[in-house]
Amino acid sequence: MKLLENAILEKGKILPGNILKIDSFLNHNIDVSLVSKLGEEFYRLYKDCSITKILTIEASGIAVACFTAQYFNVPVLFAKKEKTGNIGDELYSAPVHSYTHNKDYTAVISKEFISSADRVLIVDDFLAEGSALLAMISLVQQSGATVAGAGIVVEKAFQDGGKIVRNQGYRVESLAKIASFSEDGLEFVKE
Amino acid sequence: MKLLENAILEKGKILPGNILKIDSFLNHNIDVSLVSKLGEEFYRLYKDCSITKILTIEASGIAVACFTAQYFNVPVLFAKKEKTGNIGDELYSAPVHSYTHNKDYTAVISKEFISSADRVLIVDDFLAEGSALLAMISLVQQSGATVAGAGIVVEKAFQDGGKIVRNQGYRVESLAKIASFSEDGLEFVKE
Repeated sequence: MKLLENAILEKGKILPGNILKIDSFLNHNIDVSLVSKLGEEFYRLYKDCSITKILTIEASGIAVACFTAQYFNVPVLFAKKEKTGNIGDELYSAPVHSYTHNKDYTAVISKEFISSADRVLIVDDFLAEGSALLAMISLVQQSGATVAGAGIVVEKAFQDGGKIVRNQGYRVESLAKIASFSEDGLEFVKE
Repeated sequence: MKLLENAILEKGKILPGNILKIDSFLNHNIDVSLVSKLGEEFYRLYKDCSITKILTIEASGIAVACFTAQYFNVPVLFAKKEKTGNIGDELYSAPVHSYTHNKDYTAVISKEFISSADRVLIVDDFLAEGSALLAMISLVQQSGATVAGAGIVVEKAFQDGGKIVRNQGYRVESLAKIASFSEDGLEFVKE
């Protein structure tokens, strides 16, 4: 998606450890007009898939999930990290490892907000090793609902997450795919 | 706001410790149509205040902040909890105590995304003791920007946060104000 690639080239910063910081428009300071266009693109890609629910994970997936859900006119469910005191006991849970922050946590959703009749589009800001995406797929599977696919804003295509999830038969659509980072900048995958 | 009060009465659950759970539409499963209407109401209340930025705090404030920002056509900045590895060193920070989770953390924002020229509307889902709101006011003050006011979805009016913040001279608009909880349900403040 050219609009997104241009925003990444213009505003992104590359930090040590292959971390792409695009918090000027996506996940700290949010350009709502731009992020809404990302949602519109996910709608274009998945509009024929009878989506009934958008699933994401707190915190940085919430904005893009909300703007995506506006186009589909369906609810957003966001997985919470760890068990908190007031989420109730009736949870589906799955372990996640964050490579960026080198932390393990548990992603949880309340059973009452998802059912076997749901067709779920999973939306997230980044896909790298795939740990969060695999956890969200597990949450959907535990509920008996159907994973219709995943919508990712930025995929680091040089890491294994996308390959692992696609090899399991899931559709993954990424709006920008990064082939490599270098000191001079980054290269997108040429489709 | 009648629409919100009705949603709370219909879908809210009261848990021990005066916790109101409205995660079926606001902060776990998100009814995007309803939450967008909350944003529209904040716009009606603050549209003449030359707002340049919406500030909230992760994770449960992000959805309502994003839908509010759509009406104002300004960016959302969400404060992060604790310092993470990839947010950069140039931060404003303020301590927060969560009474719900009985935890202390630090709210941080990047200095680069707020300036003294900004007029900030602070948006959050709940106001009780006011710790998160006071922290966000402090973050704005540190930047030299102006706090135009706060937009709160649900204020627990029997707790002190609203009084403390209004006594400091800030405008606080709450779309639902709860006077009391009981075993039978809840009472809203009669305006």
